[in-house]
Amino acid sequence: MAPETEETTRSTEDARETTARTPSRRALIGWGGAGLALGAVAGGSTAAALSADPTPAAADGGAAVPFHGAHQAGIATAVQDRLHFAAFDVTTDDREALIDLLKEWTAAAAKMTAGRPVGEGAVGGLAEAPPDDTGEALDLKPSRLTLTFGIGPTLFEKKGKDRFGLKDRRPAALIDLPKFPGDNLEAARSGGDLCVQACADDPQVAVHAIRNLARIGFGKVAVRWSQLGFGKTSSTTPDAHTPRNMFGFKDGTRNIAGTDTGELDKHVWVGKSDDKGAGAWMAGGSYLVARRIRMHIETWDRTSLKEQEDVFGRSKGEGSPAGRQREFDEPHLKSMLPTAHVRLAHPDSNGGTRILRRGYSFTDGTDGLGRLDAGLFFLAYQRDVRDGFVPLQKNLARHDALNEYIQHVGSAVFAVPPGVRDKDDWWGRTLFA
Amino acid sequence: MAPETEETTRSTEDARETTARTPSRRALIGWGGAGLALGAVAGGSTAAALSADPTPAAADGGAAVPFHGAHQAGIATAVQDRLHFAAFDVTTDDREALIDLLKEWTAAAAKMTAGRPVGEGAVGGLAEAPPDDTGEALDLKPSRLTLTFGIGPTLFEKKGKDRFGLKDRRPAALIDLPKFPGDNLEAARSGGDLCVQACADDPQVAVHAIRNLARIGFGKVAVRWSQLGFGKTSSTTPDAHTPRNMFGFKDGTRNIAGTDTGELDKHVWVGKSDDKGAGAWMAGGSYLVARRIRMHIETWDRTSLKEQEDVFGRSKGEGSPAGRQREFDEPHLKSMLPTAHVRLAHPDSNGGTRILRRGYSFTDGTDGLGRLDAGLFFLAYQRDVRDGFVPLQKNLARHDALNEYIQHVGSAVFAVPPGVRDKDDWWGRTLFA
Repeated sequence: MAPETEETTRSTEDARETTARTPSRRALIGWGGAGLALGAVAGGSTAAALSADPTPAAADGGAAVPFHGAHQAGIATAVQDRLHFAAFDVTTDDREALIDLLKEWTAAAAKMTAGRPVGEGAVGGLAEAPPDDTGEALDLKPSRLTLTFGIGPTLFEKKGKDRFGLKDRRPAALIDLPKFPGDNLEAARSGGDLCVQACADDPQVAVHAIRNLARIGFGKVAVRWSQLGFGKTSSTTPDAHTPRNMFGFKDGTRNIAGTDTGELDKHVWVGKSDDKGAGAWMAGGSYLVARRIRMHIETWDRTSLKEQEDVFGRSKGEGSPAGRQREFDEPHLKSMLPTAHVRLAHPDSNGGTRILRRGYSFTDGTDGLGRLDAGLFFLAYQRDVRDGFVPLQKNLARHDALNEYIQHVGSAVFAVPPGVRDKDDWWGRTLFA
Repeated sequence: MAPETEETTRSTEDARETTARTPSRRALIGWGGAGLALGAVAGGSTAAALSADPTPAAADGGAAVPFHGAHQAGIATAVQDRLHFAAFDVTTDDREALIDLLKEWTAAAAKMTAGRPVGEGAVGGLAEAPPDDTGEALDLKPSRLTLTFGIGPTLFEKKGKDRFGLKDRRPAALIDLPKFPGDNLEAARSGGDLCVQACADDPQVAVHAIRNLARIGFGKVAVRWSQLGFGKTSSTTPDAHTPRNMFGFKDGTRNIAGTDTGELDKHVWVGKSDDKGAGAWMAGGSYLVARRIRMHIETWDRTSLKEQEDVFGRSKGEGSPAGRQREFDEPHLKSMLPTAHVRLAHPDSNGGTRILRRGYSFTDGTDGLGRLDAGLFFLAYQRDVRDGFVPLQKNLARHDALNEYIQHVGSAVFAVPPGVRDKDDWWGRTLFA
């Protein structure tokens, strides 16, 4: 199949692959360079992709999530089971080379989220060239892969240098996070010029996506740090059961629902009137705070059940707020200790502030002292970091009883641009255009 | 429910929970100390557990795998999706304390593999005491969790010291592995007095199991190193599709099937006549070699398709042997380069040697140079390491074209005792008795 044919059918294919058919990648590729057999799908309009619901409520592990839309997928999308998150340093100082890379990345992301290999369809293309796709996801389903792209403060300015002529475009909401009490941040796990959050129901699909983006970016970007998450700790689908964190507790039971457009518009999506100074290029986007929170598992595991429940302000088994019977009973904050996590994190203790959480548990083996290197990779989306994570974390960092058992060791903040609207659009276009 | 009632019903419950009902752990626990509601299941015989098929062919992600049997589960068992492997140093020098721990571990393993929390059923027991179970798997299904226990050479003798009066019981087959060409082993990722391999279809269930065993062992053992694996690279069910490794290739397409009792008896299970010198305590057990194999992903990804296929001796897309059409066509070894991986690893190139592989892909973030710290955590079971991994790896380490792209950075070998036969049996009993 000729590339131009493929371009015209891509958006139709994206929409098509959200159906229950969800073919494996193998079914989509020919072998020996025979190429795609999808050319028979004629025509196609971008409207089909744009009108598709980007937040399917049902967690069908095999389906595809549409890549194109007003907002990037992977924010309001029903939280997938696994995560691979990567922060990149941009190593080129050539603005055009960076733009070319973002276009290449966008094209690859559209293919991978649809469950197709990177490149022109077959495994290899020329036998004498490296394969377009690294291959380890060839037999796997789309697995609800989402790839969510963000831009860190250092892309706009680094050590006083306006690297890409973007300094004046930096949104006021994209602040450098202040140092919070108790922070013990490692530079090697913090910051980044760019980021990509890969979420999928199959970890191999998420890892494959980050690896192929890193490969495509060779010579222009380098992975600064990356993090795998094996278990979601938040849900954006209130009817699903609330996952547990590594302390064995349900947390964030009242997360913003991915279908609650009112709350999303109020707390998550950047509005057209926001950040006029830097231009409205972030309208429809969001701001992401990522924190690697190490949990002192061994200390926690020697703490009494009563202490654990007091620390959270919640029962361990059912997950009910202190003094209540069921998980979703309205919390009575005054029944909790003033240092209880649920009480301090509740919107009523924070002037109504809400953030959309998509955090994941991680376990990265063992540290040098035989302790599990485990914890929570906290990911939160918000309309403005200054009104979202910052006041919330100031409150928690000062008072939360949980601080005895956790430590923030990595930190980053990113502007997450609006969605890629169609096949001619690309990650970051509104910023560079 | 009283503990003694629970003891008598456990094996029945184990068998019962292998059915399609597979309740979640939450369904099995009362809240507020009300305890198990399973007392109504009367009587029960160990025969039910022993006769249950330990290798269900169907990969029902939610089901339980029976814990009791002639062989340990997690070897011939259909390979689960995820891995958490831990090697432990024994920190006590008290033989009785070690035996007590192994009994405690065995009881906890029987519960967790059945999808039940550790301890007496409820989350907590006393509010003033730490919970018996850490809780993060409470809502999750058994997820085919298997826990497979092994004993390293250093438990028998370390620096010339007979630590537990076991020196004369060390099997001749449990050799210290020789140094192979190209080995670049890190001490912090090698060795161990004991090991537990946790495999499950849900990573949170595998992590929970290792974490709780480490917690129970506090003061007697310490985790020396651990490894998470996110994607299986081998299958013991020949009818399932062969998984791909991080190089994007199918490998080990001709693994020993978990249902092939003839080949298992010949190549995997220790026979009664083996190792008479050390006593027959290993009869029904096996020997495990674990190797952390770092893959140089970035180098590989810049290698041409032809080179990649020549290195493996196999096509990338279909996985067919060189010169053949389909994955399971009989390989024609002479069609491959003498350095091709398939040719060198084939039984015909190794005097008929076969090993049972259960390896997993890993990605542990990024190294200091921005490269993915990724590769294969190789796990192989065999009747005798001297006739299995050692000659095979000697052949591969000398000649395999793949060596340009990989490096062995961790290594360990363990004697894996026979299965726990019933509720009175425990991990390692045949060794210590």
